Amino acid sequence: MTERDEILPSWRPGATRDAVVAFLDRTASVAPEDRVACFDNDGTLWCERPTYAQLDFFVDALKTRVHDDPEIGSTPEFAALLGGDASAIGELGLERIGMALVGLFEGMTPEAFADRARQFMGRADHATLGRPLRTTVYQPMLELLEELRRRDFAISIVTGGGTEFVRAISTRLYGVAPEAVVGTRIKYAFDSDDDRPVLRRTGAIEGDPNEGATKVTNIQTQLGRRPILAAGNSGGDREMLAWACSSDGPGLALLVDHDDPAREFAYVSTAQTFTETEPITDVGHRLGWTVVSMAADWDTVFVPDGRDPS
Amino acid sequence: MTERDEILPSWRPGATRDAVVAFLDRTASVAPEDRVACFDNDGTLWCERPTYAQLDFFVDALKTRVHDDPEIGSTPEFAALLGGDASAIGELGLERIGMALVGLFEGMTPEAFADRARQFMGRADHATLGRPLRTTVYQPMLELLEELRRRDFAISIVTGGGTEFVRAISTRLYGVAPEAVVGTRIKYAFDSDDDRPVLRRTGAIEGDPNEGATKVTNIQTQLGRRPILAAGNSGGDREMLAWACSSDGPGLALLVDHDDPAREFAYVSTAQTFTETEPITDVGHRLGWTVVSMAADWDTVFVPDGRDPS
Repeated sequence: MTERDEILPSWRPGATRDAVVAFLDRTASVAPEDRVACFDNDGTLWCERPTYAQLDFFVDALKTRVHDDPEIGSTPEFAALLGGDASAIGELGLERIGMALVGLFEGMTPEAFADRARQFMGRADHATLGRPLRTTVYQPMLELLEELRRRDFAISIVTGGGTEFVRAISTRLYGVAPEAVVGTRIKYAFDSDDDRPVLRRTGAIEGDPNEGATKVTNIQTQLGRRPILAAGNSGGDREMLAWACSSDGPGLALLVDHDDPAREFAYVSTAQTFTETEPITDVGHRLGWTVVSMAADWDTVFVPDGRDPS
Repeated sequence: MTERDEILPSWRPGATRDAVVAFLDRTASVAPEDRVACFDNDGTLWCERPTYAQLDFFVDALKTRVHDDPEIGSTPEFAALLGGDASAIGELGLERIGMALVGLFEGMTPEAFADRARQFMGRADHATLGRPLRTTVYQPMLELLEELRRRDFAISIVTGGGTEFVRAISTRLYGVAPEAVVGTRIKYAFDSDDDRPVLRRTGAIEGDPNEGATKVTNIQTQLGRRPILAAGNSGGDREMLAWACSSDGPGLALLVDHDDPAREFAYVSTAQTFTETEPITDVGHRLGWTVVSMAADWDTVFVPDGRDPS
């Protein structure tokens, strides 16, 4: 085998793998400081179905809170969520429910929040896949991260999820440091009146949720470098993917198509413009992105589940 | 000489140097991921008198613009600035004048802005020190950065100045990558209507100017790690310095006292609370910070000016 065949072992031979490897080879001519790769998290680095892991964490925290303080379960947002009342959830809107959940952590220090997220991720199982939630990470993507690192890429996670939730697990799961996570930001309050200053979460979001064009502007404001590889799987990644492959040099937009109901899930996200709604995979094919068929292109989907004694 | 004597060669022997070295020694017991140091820029890593380098850059850009379009010089903010009219400047306020200057770069791409800042820093001289502006960097601070890197510290610049201006020069002057610069953020607009997406500066600031408690909250939201060393020189650094030395482990708050009119400048910044204004050096002595006397503690102030053929 040549070296080209040895890398990315979980990627099946074919046009997709060839496109990824050809891009990696082209980047040898790119200045090291311009080797920047940005990965969406939910649905791109790990499974996002049937529910986001962060939502599972929030609902778990809500149940603990309701156990201690049953009153809180009767607020409309929490009652709808805990009762699984789809029409009430739709009427209230996910944003309002999300903000109510964010409010559960108001007053916590960043360290306490991270500890709690890590504890949850250490014990939670996926709802249907029969494996720990932390092992719903995609093995082929871990191999791509590893190969990019070997080629001196700076790797960032650019997520619509909460920055601090993803930071709590990004080093362990992906080898990505906290400062390389760009997500939706919580607003903090710094209390310096005491002798011992303290930083606490508020119940508010700073700026806009990190989706769509905001992913691109947040990459610039937080990282200050432009990616030449972006990977995503949903309409909220469209602008970031277009951005990564529109410079003069090599660029790769990698779009994960969830077409594998046997091993994961089958669904398609849509990208919205002012006038139309288009499946993101159609956008990807139309714009010449590299669309990854989970069913066809990945020999293995998930990392080992860690339950073996090996 | 022992190794302790060999490091930080521009720091004169004495209590200040001893405190810095003792802190460095104590950090051997700190987990590598917690070795985080945050440095203010203006007045801490380089000279900020008689004017901020970024203001020099803005005024230079203004003069170029007025040369091409004389009308623009008659707007009140620019007329006051170009005429050096202190009372008009005071009446308009620095914030309004600053925003007018920021507006000069509206519509520019981040790359074009960075190029322009680098061109300016490549040719500008300091107003009175008789050396290129880029060589008003403090040699002892560069040695401290080097020593911290040797001990696996992650180093960030946390500046009240514009993030993008400092990023344009941070790698070359300090070896600090763009993503490790936390400053006042410009708001960007992402234009994805064209076939070729483009990111452009607006004339607005995102969030609050990066001073005071905002430095602490921005460190958390952008970097996600808490510093155990912070260095600053003004009232706007107070919260960050207090933050760095209030955890359970080793912590160092380093405050530069500009008391060296012979080699640099002599001035003192004040820290404001609701009830009083206190010189920041008094705050530092009161809180047990390590106050660096530029006159007494630094054997050399500036990096070599690069004009020698050596």
